[in-house]
Amino acid sequence: MPYRAPSGDIQFILDHVVPLAPVSGTARFSEATPDLAEAILTQAAKLCDTVLAPVQRNGDLTPARLVDGVVRTSPGYPEAFDAIREGGWVSVCAPAEHGGMGLPQCLNMAIHDMMSGACLSLQLSPLMTQGQIEALDHHAADELKALYLPKLISGEWAGTMNLTEAQAGSDVGALRTKAEPKGDGTYAITGQKIFISWGDSDLTSNICHLVLARLPGAAAGTKGISLFMVPKFIPDADGNPGEANAVKVVSLEHKMGLHGSPTCVMAYKGATGWMVGEEGRGMAAMFTMMNNARLGVAMQGIGVAEAACQAATEYAAERQQFGAIIGHADVRRMLAGMRADVFAARAIALSCAQAIDMGSATEDADWVARAAFLTPIAKAFGTETGMRVSETAMQVHGGMGFIEETGVAQFYRDVRVTAIYEGTNGIQAMDLVGRKLSDGGEAAYRILEEIEAGAEAARAALPELAEEVWAAAETLREATEWMVGQAPTDRQAGATAYLRAFARVLGAHFHLRAATADEGRQALAAFYIRRTLPQHAADLAEARDGADTVFALSPEALGL
Amino acid sequence: MPYRAPSGDIQFILDHVVPLAPVSGTARFSEATPDLAEAILTQAAKLCDTVLAPVQRNGDLTPARLVDGVVRTSPGYPEAFDAIREGGWVSVCAPAEHGGMGLPQCLNMAIHDMMSGACLSLQLSPLMTQGQIEALDHHAADELKALYLPKLISGEWAGTMNLTEAQAGSDVGALRTKAEPKGDGTYAITGQKIFISWGDSDLTSNICHLVLARLPGAAAGTKGISLFMVPKFIPDADGNPGEANAVKVVSLEHKMGLHGSPTCVMAYKGATGWMVGEEGRGMAAMFTMMNNARLGVAMQGIGVAEAACQAATEYAAERQQFGAIIGHADVRRMLAGMRADVFAARAIALSCAQAIDMGSATEDADWVARAAFLTPIAKAFGTETGMRVSETAMQVHGGMGFIEETGVAQFYRDVRVTAIYEGTNGIQAMDLVGRKLSDGGEAAYRILEEIEAGAEAARAALPELAEEVWAAAETLREATEWMVGQAPTDRQAGATAYLRAFARVLGAHFHLRAATADEGRQALAAFYIRRTLPQHAADLAEARDGADTVFALSPEALGL
Repeated sequence: MPYRAPSGDIQFILDHVVPLAPVSGTARFSEATPDLAEAILTQAAKLCDTVLAPVQRNGDLTPARLVDGVVRTSPGYPEAFDAIREGGWVSVCAPAEHGGMGLPQCLNMAIHDMMSGACLSLQLSPLMTQGQIEALDHHAADELKALYLPKLISGEWAGTMNLTEAQAGSDVGALRTKAEPKGDGTYAITGQKIFISWGDSDLTSNICHLVLARLPGAAAGTKGISLFMVPKFIPDADGNPGEANAVKVVSLEHKMGLHGSPTCVMAYKGATGWMVGEEGRGMAAMFTMMNNARLGVAMQGIGVAEAACQAATEYAAERQQFGAIIGHADVRRMLAGMRADVFAARAIALSCAQAIDMGSATEDADWVARAAFLTPIAKAFGTETGMRVSETAMQVHGGMGFIEETGVAQFYRDVRVTAIYEGTNGIQAMDLVGRKLSDGGEAAYRILEEIEAGAEAARAALPELAEEVWAAAETLREATEWMVGQAPTDRQAGATAYLRAFARVLGAHFHLRAATADEGRQALAAFYIRRTLPQHAADLAEARDGADTVFALSPEALGL
Repeated sequence: MPYRAPSGDIQFILDHVVPLAPVSGTARFSEATPDLAEAILTQAAKLCDTVLAPVQRNGDLTPARLVDGVVRTSPGYPEAFDAIREGGWVSVCAPAEHGGMGLPQCLNMAIHDMMSGACLSLQLSPLMTQGQIEALDHHAADELKALYLPKLISGEWAGTMNLTEAQAGSDVGALRTKAEPKGDGTYAITGQKIFISWGDSDLTSNICHLVLARLPGAAAGTKGISLFMVPKFIPDADGNPGEANAVKVVSLEHKMGLHGSPTCVMAYKGATGWMVGEEGRGMAAMFTMMNNARLGVAMQGIGVAEAACQAATEYAAERQQFGAIIGHADVRRMLAGMRADVFAARAIALSCAQAIDMGSATEDADWVARAAFLTPIAKAFGTETGMRVSETAMQVHGGMGFIEETGVAQFYRDVRVTAIYEGTNGIQAMDLVGRKLSDGGEAAYRILEEIEAGAEAARAALPELAEEVWAAAETLREATEWMVGQAPTDRQAGATAYLRAFARVLGAHFHLRAATADEGRQALAAFYIRRTLPQHAADLAEARDGADTVFALSPEALGL
């Protein structure tokens, strides 16, 4: 049985767990009615099942390649991307004034979830373009917007994000790419960037690079960094791709997975660029792009987890060994664990999307803070779920799982990078316990209150499960109080464990909501709350251990 | 910095944590003195560092291939295997009467640990041969022994293990390969086997297949299965490889990793075979081979974990991002976590090897039961450690980790199969809570007493750590009592979690021992006991949850 996009599960979440209703209740998203949402999800699911999923293996078997300096994508990718473009799927959340649908991220991210499960490598291209659209919409001058946004939103052109340099990695402040004013308002960009996803392709007629670079004499560190639009082809007077710019793909990386997505080393040799936003504010503009991309990467992890879970469940139902293996307790445990984790990660991510929508529609500071707080959790937990579930899915397949033709190995290899790019999961955890707790824990406490209120509401119908969730939220509250009172290093030493615990408890909260709304969901919620939730206590013990244990280790003890 | 075989760490464990002394105190292993052990480990480490590690990447980049029906191994593999053979490394634990060194598994498994870290694909070949040597030594008729054992022990020939068939998988009882008596004491073997590691190669002049098959009219299930020796070339009157037998490699699998190890589909078309052991007792004989192979696979997981941990530590010490990344709390957490897990898994596996040695030297039922109890724990935890550590090692590398040239991706891909083959980790867990607890928990309780006694002894010097370990052992005892009292399905539903908890607590026990013996090891022990051990509680909560939660899920709830 091939992949079936989980539009039903997503619909259930948007109806009962993380409701779309408050979002469609705002003036900004009033068009996002339940009917429209259902229609959009159904149509996107059809695209995923019939167009994207069929080319997923192609990306792995016939990776993107560099031919005479130009990237040629995998067989079927251009046609599949045409379908994405023609369906308007790049434009879902883009501003209506430039041709976008202006719909909420709730729906857009749900579509990314489904597209990721269908064909992760290809989904990454529109995700990057959407991030660029948002960055330009927020930071670019009107002239640049008018020139670029319609083409990006229509999917005619694609966008990329150029941060990383070989010597800098996540330490963006150390980058060296130069931007020299040419005197006509443009800049000459010179430098080399690595890890540029979809840095070139044959899917679109132009590729628009947003490049971080330094002006001559700029301050050291991130404050000296500005952002530039550097198109592959410089738009002519009519706004069509004209003269080739001085940017080249030097090489493609040989990656462990995600072979359908060309990861480029890009060389800028005095390429013409236009500044986006203010001088020295490049990182701020880039963060707009990255924040959405982070949630998009969460959806990648969740989407691949969904696809892997489907494959394993199907295999277990068909595979005969001492009877069908789905009847074995340990196999059933694995299947239930995968399904329960996918639900939890998906609800958390959609809850983050909901907060983004409410924040942008209402400009309410609480919603904005909630979105900011949930983003690193959604990203790290969504992608960790992708890793764990694809690992378990392979385990369910036994020896067949290790054979590439079975297909589950591709999920395992592809999804691995999601825990690394757009800020490693460690960086997400630092962000959570650093910047996102810098409000003294207010955003966290509001979420904890919601969880406890949810547990109280569920007590009558599901007393045991409700009590577990309530107690876990209390433990998490104590750990949060501890965190807020610590020095940065102590927080950091417990950051990953704290993030994981927060995700577990939040996942249990959403499972409980689902169980309250639908009796058919109680068994899965009980599985999660009884068997997975208890891990939060160990995570929080680790979270509160402080930095001493970690720094007590000498280089010798670490094997150096 | 290239791989450095961890002979020093192993030596420390054999001196202070899982002492070799009682083993060398037996008559059987009296030659295994500390001096000899040190000499052997030093020599093996040199082989690993200078001969095996340099060909490790070759296996991945230039996989074994099938050329005109014969397997050609990766560049450098034949020469590296020659060094293994010439050093006598196949013969370490083989019986002296047939040319082996007759040394304990403690040393042999330590060598497999180091060889696996150096070159996993190649290490698998001697591991399989050793399993076959042991199976023949225990079950074959003297004539077969005299003919095959010297050649296998010298490394002149290699051995394989042929269980799996496409329709049967782990359900060996369902196999269909036929063995028809030819009237001259030999049998005509007909059938197809899959997943045959090192089913053919150019490393040795002959390959000896041990094949499970059914005699005509044999009982259904495992009781109708017998074991046969089917050589690639039938030995001539002088015992040299003669006439080619009717066995062919049909194809090699395309695997996610372990590319240097040819995984063959083998076709037997009336091939001549000799029965090994008694009719209908094939599974018993094969289990002899598998039990040791299981511990050998544990060493594979641990060896790869060691190599991945070394690579990550080295990278973190060199990589500059906001200063050297080894100074970041979260990076240091990852490095310490890897190092601590490798120590725990290694000590558990060597403790299992020690029990095997004591069991075989003394025939003491307690030692035999301890070895049997520890084998599934060592296998599942060792290979899970391989997966977790190689995943973390990749995470430490950031984006570079996902690039194949960095090399850490190979560890991640290669080690994945170790959790699957020689009995999936789920099957190990079933074995633990089924057969291995069928003594009413006696073997488990003896280990728990040892842990508690160790904690008591450590109380004076390390009161806090000792208390944590003692309390964890008590919780594990309660869970063990619960397990012993349950119906099989309830045990099975909690099996994986129970195994994991047992490994955690046992790992803490050995860390505590190490910390008691050497002050320099206290920081790592504290890290493990404070930050990793707490997970045992969640695991045991899951272990004791019973089967109802798992079976309450309808097919619909599982997404079917």
